Amino acid sequence: MNLEGLSINLATTRGSFGFAEAVDACLQRGITAISPWRDQIEATGLKEATNIVRSNGLRLTGVCRGGMFPAADAEGISAAIDDNKRAIDEAAALGADCLVFVVGGLPKGSRDIGGARRMVEEGFGAILPHARAAGVPLAIEPLHPMYAADRACVNTLGQALDLAGRLGPDVGVAIDVYHVWWDPDLAAQIARAGRENRIFAHHICDWLVPTRDLLLDRGMMGDGVIDLKAFRAMIEAAGFHGPQEVEIFSAENWWKKPGGEVLDTVIERFRAVC
Amino acid sequence: MNLEGLSINLATTRGSFGFAEAVDACLQRGITAISPWRDQIEATGLKEATNIVRSNGLRLTGVCRGGMFPAADAEGISAAIDDNKRAIDEAAALGADCLVFVVGGLPKGSRDIGGARRMVEEGFGAILPHARAAGVPLAIEPLHPMYAADRACVNTLGQALDLAGRLGPDVGVAIDVYHVWWDPDLAAQIARAGRENRIFAHHICDWLVPTRDLLLDRGMMGDGVIDLKAFRAMIEAAGFHGPQEVEIFSAENWWKKPGGEVLDTVIERFRAVC
Repeated sequence: MNLEGLSINLATTRGSFGFAEAVDACLQRGITAISPWRDQIEATGLKEATNIVRSNGLRLTGVCRGGMFPAADAEGISAAIDDNKRAIDEAAALGADCLVFVVGGLPKGSRDIGGARRMVEEGFGAILPHARAAGVPLAIEPLHPMYAADRACVNTLGQALDLAGRLGPDVGVAIDVYHVWWDPDLAAQIARAGRENRIFAHHICDWLVPTRDLLLDRGMMGDGVIDLKAFRAMIEAAGFHGPQEVEIFSAENWWKKPGGEVLDTVIERFRAVC
Repeated sequence: MNLEGLSINLATTRGSFGFAEAVDACLQRGITAISPWRDQIEATGLKEATNIVRSNGLRLTGVCRGGMFPAADAEGISAAIDDNKRAIDEAAALGADCLVFVVGGLPKGSRDIGGARRMVEEGFGAILPHARAAGVPLAIEPLHPMYAADRACVNTLGQALDLAGRLGPDVGVAIDVYHVWWDPDLAAQIARAGRENRIFAHHICDWLVPTRDLLLDRGMMGDGVIDLKAFRAMIEAAGFHGPQEVEIFSAENWWKKPGGEVLDTVIERFRAVC
């Protein structure tokens, strides 16, 4: 097995590597696909980041992230739309496969999740012309329901596909095993996502038992309870054969280890259990 | 507003009260509905607990809990079935409205959530004749997806209703706002639960932002982001008018306060925001 099927989300090595160091460490190991975060791009500078990507022939399986649409007032909503347009421009400059969206949760003080969901849809509507002009595919990432209040009020693959369906044929989904592995309707919705040509990205990590923190305790593939090979089989049966993107937030474990060791473990586990 | 619509799940005062003390503190405040846990019943003794319930005319909105069906081997499965039969007998002796089920997650070492779900259904099948003979309604409680691995692999109201539908007309659901508030299909599934006469219990608390622990950081009503009045309106529109049962696991906050103070706050919030 070569490593063409593997992409590194640069959150995974955030504990020790910035953008350029992460790229170097990936290339040393034969990994040629990455997915950076906007703060990492900004720290490097968009022009320099673009040069690094192009000169090394890197594939960007995504840019993280757009979204965070709901806001308590018109000013906040407008600021979010402007920021999302900048994110689209960055993803276009970098030639990314897609811009990944964490859509946002409840505005401060709100208990109206239905209202937040409407704000998300309106936000996408406001940026779609910009994304189409830039040629950037938008990938809605349904987030685990435990993030519904504060990070993303799109919480199932079915809900994300319904939303994408209302927005248009060029909006898709990023399917992260961590967020959707539990869904009793998962197999049917992955198959549907394939039929509708909306699988833009496939993210992997693992769900640990116990999970000690809602945000920063994701597991390395193989250390948790997700059947990653079975999951990938569903993704490929649905027609997506792009890289599996490893995205691990792990404040107390992997982020404390040297980035090279993290990448070596990723490669070993990718070959063994993905 | 009187307090007939309020029930106290005795987990809420677990920090300071056993069964008898909790009952006394509830009665002092005009609360006549409770829902005890099996360890609390056992500590008091089933006969004594039954005497306390009958002599005070208490309504039991549930007994917590049956379930935990999936196991790694036949011995474990058999032990779970036997334990569930004992739970049914206890709920019958106490005259509870229902026995609440936390169905269980993955057996140790398993990554097969579909298999765990089949074990749950088979477990219910094995105990249903016993429950019917005892006249105890079984209430499946869909748990938040963050518990899919280790506590319950039934994770949406729709999934619970599908399961109940396959089991029979005398199996229903316990709808806890904490577990299902995020569900984009919530309104439709509550209405369906009503049409199918399957709402056996309504549990309340609140979802805190941030949530600091996956299990033991539930909020007091009004301190989080759930629109409890709107939720209750859906429940009542679906035909359920039984008490709202307050169930708060809160190791670092409410369990550290005196039980009387917790109950006083519950009453205040129940009147204000539920």
